[in-house]
Amino acid sequence: MRASFYTGNKSFTAGEIDPRALRPDEARIKVSYCGICGTDLHIFHGRMDQRVNPPRVIGHECSGIIEEISLSTANFKKGDRVVVRPLHPCGECPACLDGYAHICHRLKFLGIDTDGAFQEFWTVPAFAVHKLPDNLSLELGALIEPLAVACHDVRISGIKKGETAVIIGGGPIGMLVALVARESGADAVITEINPVRIKFAKSLGFETINPDESDVEAYINDKTRARGADVVFEVSGSANAAKLMTQIIKTRGTIVVVAIYTEKPPLDLHRFFWREITLKGARVYEPEDYEAAISIASKGNMPLERMITRIAPLSDIQSAFENAGSAADMKTLIKI
Amino acid sequence: MRASFYTGNKSFTAGEIDPRALRPDEARIKVSYCGICGTDLHIFHGRMDQRVNPPRVIGHECSGIIEEISLSTANFKKGDRVVVRPLHPCGECPACLDGYAHICHRLKFLGIDTDGAFQEFWTVPAFAVHKLPDNLSLELGALIEPLAVACHDVRISGIKKGETAVIIGGGPIGMLVALVARESGADAVITEINPVRIKFAKSLGFETINPDESDVEAYINDKTRARGADVVFEVSGSANAAKLMTQIIKTRGTIVVVAIYTEKPPLDLHRFFWREITLKGARVYEPEDYEAAISIASKGNMPLERMITRIAPLSDIQSAFENAGSAADMKTLIKI
Repeated sequence: MRASFYTGNKSFTAGEIDPRALRPDEARIKVSYCGICGTDLHIFHGRMDQRVNPPRVIGHECSGIIEEISLSTANFKKGDRVVVRPLHPCGECPACLDGYAHICHRLKFLGIDTDGAFQEFWTVPAFAVHKLPDNLSLELGALIEPLAVACHDVRISGIKKGETAVIIGGGPIGMLVALVARESGADAVITEINPVRIKFAKSLGFETINPDESDVEAYINDKTRARGADVVFEVSGSANAAKLMTQIIKTRGTIVVVAIYTEKPPLDLHRFFWREITLKGARVYEPEDYEAAISIASKGNMPLERMITRIAPLSDIQSAFENAGSAADMKTLIKI
Repeated sequence: MRASFYTGNKSFTAGEIDPRALRPDEARIKVSYCGICGTDLHIFHGRMDQRVNPPRVIGHECSGIIEEISLSTANFKKGDRVVVRPLHPCGECPACLDGYAHICHRLKFLGIDTDGAFQEFWTVPAFAVHKLPDNLSLELGALIEPLAVACHDVRISGIKKGETAVIIGGGPIGMLVALVARESGADAVITEINPVRIKFAKSLGFETINPDESDVEAYINDKTRARGADVVFEVSGSANAAKLMTQIIKTRGTIVVVAIYTEKPPLDLHRFFWREITLKGARVYEPEDYEAAISIASKGNMPLERMITRIAPLSDIQSAFENAGSAADMKTLIKI
C-alpha cells in the first residue's frame, strides 16, 4: 500500500509498505482524509525528530472507512465510516488510574509516537475509533480531532449560555474554540493581530479586536459593563497574552490555557488572588469530547466547511506541508 | 473611651474618643481581644499609609461583647459574645451583583479603610457580626478571622478526606490552613525554611519539609507514589514557591494561591496545560467561612490555643507591634 514517510529535514518520501497483521482489538482503516495539524508542522520543521524518530508515517486528524477488524472487535463492521481519537494511554500511571487517561503520563500519540494516517491503511486500537453519522462527510470527519480539542476546552471552561468568551488567538484551534463557544450560546470575541485571520474571523461572524490597535481591556470592560469576560481561552502562547488574560477576566472568571507555552511568562498572581480567578490547563480530549464534536458537527449549524482551506492528494504532501500554516491557511486536508 | 491610634512611622499613640451615635443596623461592641494581622504589621511599617490615612484606629481580628444595638437590629442583644467579619461591600459593583461581595471591587475593610478594633468600643455594621457559642473563649474568638481565611482556602480547594495537601509556607495563615486541611481529613504537609517555624509545625504534629535542605518534588513523589499532591496551598508569595507549586501538584490537581504576590513570577504554563492543573486565587472569606470557622473552633479538636503566642494589654500595643511578626510569633493578641 502507498505511504508517505516523514524522513526529517522538511521532507516526505513516498513508499510502499505491507499492512501488518491485525492484533486483537484492532481496526484497519482505509484512510479517506487526514488534516495537517500544527504539531505535524512542528515535526516537518524538524523540531520533534527525537520523539518522532524518522522515517515515520505521521498524521492523526483522520477520517476513513473500516477495512478490517480483529475478531474481538464487535462494535464495528467493515464499511463503517469512522474517525480516530489518536491517544494510546498506558492504563497504569497515576493519571490513568485517576481517570485522566487522555493525559496519561506515558501517553503514546498515534501518528507521532507510532505510525499515523498519511498512508492508505491505518491500523489502530479499536478503543480509539468513533463512528460517524451518515450525514457527516468524510471531509468534515477529518476536522473532528481539532474540533474535539475545542469541545474539550469549552467543556473545561464551564461557560454558560449568554456569557462572554474572549479567545486570544485566531488560528485554527482558536477559531474552532470560538465556533464551539458560540454554538454553546456564548458571546465569543476573538483577539488577533494578523489582518488575514481577522478578516476570516469576521467572515464567520465573529467580533474581533486587534491588540496592536486597540486597548483590549478597555474594550472588554466597555462591552461587559466593567465586569470583564466570563471566560478567556488563551490559544496564542505569548507573554503578551499571559498578561492580557488576567486583565480582561472577570472576578471569579475562568481562564483556560490551551496554548503550548515554550517559555515561562511572568504571571500576575496577585490578580488571581485579588479577584479569585481560576486558571485551568486543557489538553487534547476525552472520549465524550469526540462524541460531542461528532454530534455538534453533524447538526450542521457551524460553518465547518469554511475551515477547510485546501485539499491536496497524498502525492502532493510535500508541497501541502510547505504551504500549510500560513495566516490564510486554516486547515489543509490530505486526500488519501 | 480609650483608643490607640496608628499615627504613622511605626508609632501608636494612646487617646480618648467619644463613641459616635449608632446608625440603623449597627452594633457597638465592647472589644475583648484583637489579634495583630500581617496586614496590621504592613500598616505599622508605613507601607499602607496612603490607604490607611493616619491617624487611624486599626485592628480587625476582634472578639467582644455587644454593648448596644440599633433598634433595627433584631438578631442580637446586649451581652452577646461575638466576632466581626470586617468586610463592607458596596453592593453595586459586578462582584457584588454576581454574589462575590467578599471581594467587592470597592470593598471597605473595617480596621483598614475605616476605624478598627484597637479601642474600647468598636461600632460596626450588624451584618458583619457573628455570634460565638458559649464554649468558645473570647481569646479563641479573636482567631476566628484568620481561621475563616483558612476555612475559605480549604473550601475553595475542594480537598477531600484522605487526600494530600502541601502547604507552602508555615506562617500563621499557612499553619491555620494546615490545621483546617487536617481537620477536613487531609494529610497535610508543610514546607518551610525557618527552623523555628519547622519546630513549631512539628510540635503540632505536622510532617514538614525544608526546601533549602531537601528535594521537595522527589519527597512528594515518593510520598504519593509519583502522583503528586492533590492540593497545594501557596502561602509564601515567593518566586521559588510559584515554581515549586507546579512541580509537586498532581495531574488535574488544584493549586490555591493564598499569598499576596508583590512581583509577577515566571509561571510554567506549559505544565498547567500538560497536566490539566487548576489554579485558584482565594481571598478573605464569605459568611459561611465564618460560620465554619466558629463551628470548627468550638469543636475543640484543633490545638488553636497553641497559635496564640502572646497576649498584651492595649497599653503595650507599641511594644507588641515591635515584637510581632518574628518567626516565633504566630499570633499576638491585644487585650482591650
